[in-house]
This record gives sequence, structure tokens and C-alpha cells, in this order.
Amino acid sequence: MNRIITIGREFGSGGREMGVRLANELGFQYYDKEIITGIVNHTDYTESYVKEIIEGNTRRIIPVTIGRSLDVDVEYQIQQMQDIVKAQTEVIKEMAEKSDCVIVGRCADYILEEDDANGKIQLFKLFVHASMESRVKRCMERRSEDEMNMTEKDMEKQIRKVDKERANYYTNYTLRKWGAKENYDICFNTTNMEIKTMVPYIARLF
Amino acid sequence: MNRIITIGREFGSGGREMGVRLANELGFQYYDKEIITGIVNHTDYTESYVKEIIEGNTRRIIPVTIGRSLDVDVEYQIQQMQDIVKAQTEVIKEMAEKSDCVIVGRCADYILEEDDANGKIQLFKLFVHASMESRVKRCMERRSEDEMNMTEKDMEKQIRKVDKERANYYTNYTLRKWGAKENYDICFNTTNMEIKTMVPYIARLF
Repeated sequence: MNRIITIGREFGSGGREMGVRLANELGFQYYDKEIITGIVNHTDYTESYVKEIIEGNTRRIIPVTIGRSLDVDVEYQIQQMQDIVKAQTEVIKEMAEKSDCVIVGRCADYILEEDDANGKIQLFKLFVHASMESRVKRCMERRSEDEMNMTEKDMEKQIRKVDKERANYYTNYTLRKWGAKENYDICFNTTNMEIKTMVPYIARLF
Repeated sequence: MNRIITIGREFGSGGREMGVRLANELGFQYYDKEIITGIVNHTDYTESYVKEIIEGNTRRIIPVTIGRSLDVDVEYQIQQMQDIVKAQTEVIKEMAEKSDCVIVGRCADYILEEDDANGKIQLFKLFVHASMESRVKRCMERRSEDEMNMTEKDMEKQIRKVDKERANYYTNYTLRKWGAKENYDICFNTTNMEIKTMVPYIARLF
């Protein structure tokens, strides 16, 4: 039976790093951005449009299809969102069927619960979080060249924005509270944790 | 440097079992009821009175001292509570200074944070929780002879009552929300976890 580790994470908490390292440690496939590529392949929508939806920024939705021009129409927008949500579910279920893997974000914890309950897979749901202070520090240290002018205050604002988008998307999709410990098997607080040192030990839990 | 594992836990989630097993696995001292004995030794109060305070049931407080009779007086009650809280802090800090240990409940996570920040000890703060369904199941299986007449509904009521007392006590003492994941290093959901099987792996994290 395939073992699937899903990781929900606060922005800047190192959830992605934990996911990559766990996958390496365990020899599991790692999926993150591949989900978007999968959705694009399952639908007619462009990558940038899928990202708009997936990243939860639903207020900015403008329907864009490849090679077609359409009126902006609310009903159509809803249809598009449903298409993408359906494709996301299919893509994640396919990934889980293929092999042991780590899936970061994308409501994978919720999507795979049914297959876990039916004994098709063995699911471990993690959530990674940290104090705002340590997340700002982490993000400042890892700034891209474009972000070099950002102050700590700007970074905190950015973190809160991304978290809000993730929370909205998760709640819209699952009707659950994002990050509520009840929805996960283990919640890791990385504020005082060196992820690199801890991952070999965390990996043994699965 | 002594390693201290504190365990906060929802009633019926198996937090105590995890604590006992972790202490055995790691060869750490285990403290739970010993804290009450310690407080009794540090103060003039009886064990039953200390329990009343410690278990958060502050509305039922009746001042009782050994060998003395006193008028019920609110100011005096507050003084007694402060004595007990002070003694609890001393007892827990002494335990942490003595050796590696696991301490269950009693706001130990909060009490020991300062010593952790000062580099006197290495603190790991755990919280153990589970779904109401699995907690009722666990408690029904472990009923004492006195509890044999309890229905699942009675048990759920009892679980909610104890949790409320723990939450009140924790919040009164720490001004924090009991069970909020931000206050712990790791939160374990034992709903789908066999504690006995997992503890050897969990122990490696420390």
C-alpha cells in the first residue's frame, strides 16, 4: 500500500524544505508545482490562470482559455473553478496511486482521506508552522534578487497575505479551518527546530 | 543539559500513556501525580485541597488547612491559590533541574520556558489530542469498576468537563489558549495512532 505524506504549511515555516528532505530521506516521490502542470494537462486552462485559482486569489479571476476569447461571465467563472478543482482532485489521486510520495499543499490531505479510509493508501497528514518572527527571519535570509528591497515589515505583510490566500482556498475547498490541529496527524512547530537535523528522525515515524 | 519533555493532553487522548512510554523508552524520570505530592510538601495545604486547585475547579474552593479552622474569605482564598501556584512552579523547576524527565500536564511547558530560553535545560513541548469519538472509545475500554454504568454519552460529558477544567486552569495560569498549536513544538493526533507502536520512533526525535 502506498504511503502518502501530505504537508500543509504556513508561508515561511520551512514546510516545503521539510517535504523535499523527507522525500529524499525516504526515497519517496516529491510533488509540489507538478500538481499545477497536471491540472493544466487535465484542462484547457493556461498555467497562469490555474495558478490564480490554486493560489486562492479568487477575486482576481479573469477567465482565460487557450486560443479562445470569452465574455467575462460569473457562471462561466464558477464552471472554470469547478473544472480546476475536479482536475486537482484527479491529479492528486493519480499521484497517490502511482507510488509512495510527499505532496505539499493543494488540500491533498483532504482529497486523499477517502482513499485512506478505504484502505487504498496509508495517509500521514502533517502541518508545519512557526512563529511570525522566525518566518520573517527565514524569508529575509532566502530573499530573491527582486525582493532585496523588502523590509521585515514588508515581508511580514507578504507572509500574512499568502497565508490568508492559502486559508481561504483551503476553507473554500474543504469547509474546514486551515491549520486546525484536529485535521492533521502531526503538527510541527519549526520555530526552534533545525529542519535538516530533524528530518532523518521525523522520517522514521512513517 | 537536562532534556525535559512536557506533555499537555486532551482527556482520553492517551497523552499519559505516551508520557509513561516515552519515559520508559528514553530512561527519563516520569512525573505526573508526584507534582501534587511536591506541592503538599511545599505548603500547608492538604492533598485534596491542592487537587481542587490544580484540577482547575476553582469555583468549589473551600479553604482547608491542616489542623486549623478559618473563615471563608475571598482574599485568603486568593492567597492560598497563589501559594499553590508558586509551589507548583518551584516543584516543576526542581524536577527539571534534577534529571532528564517527562512531565505530564500542570502547565509545565509554560513554567519551564524561561529555563529553556536561558540555556539551563532543553525543553520539548508536546500536546496530545484525538477526536471525541476515539477518546470516548478509549475511555469506555478503560473504565474503572465505579464507571461501569456510564454510557458513551456520560463519558463524552465527563471528557468535556475535564477538558474545560484543564483549559481554564491553563489559561488562568498562562494567559494562553490551552491546546493552541503555537504553544507546542509538536502536536500529535492519536485518533489513528497506535501509541505503543509509535513511541519508539517518537522517542528518537529527542
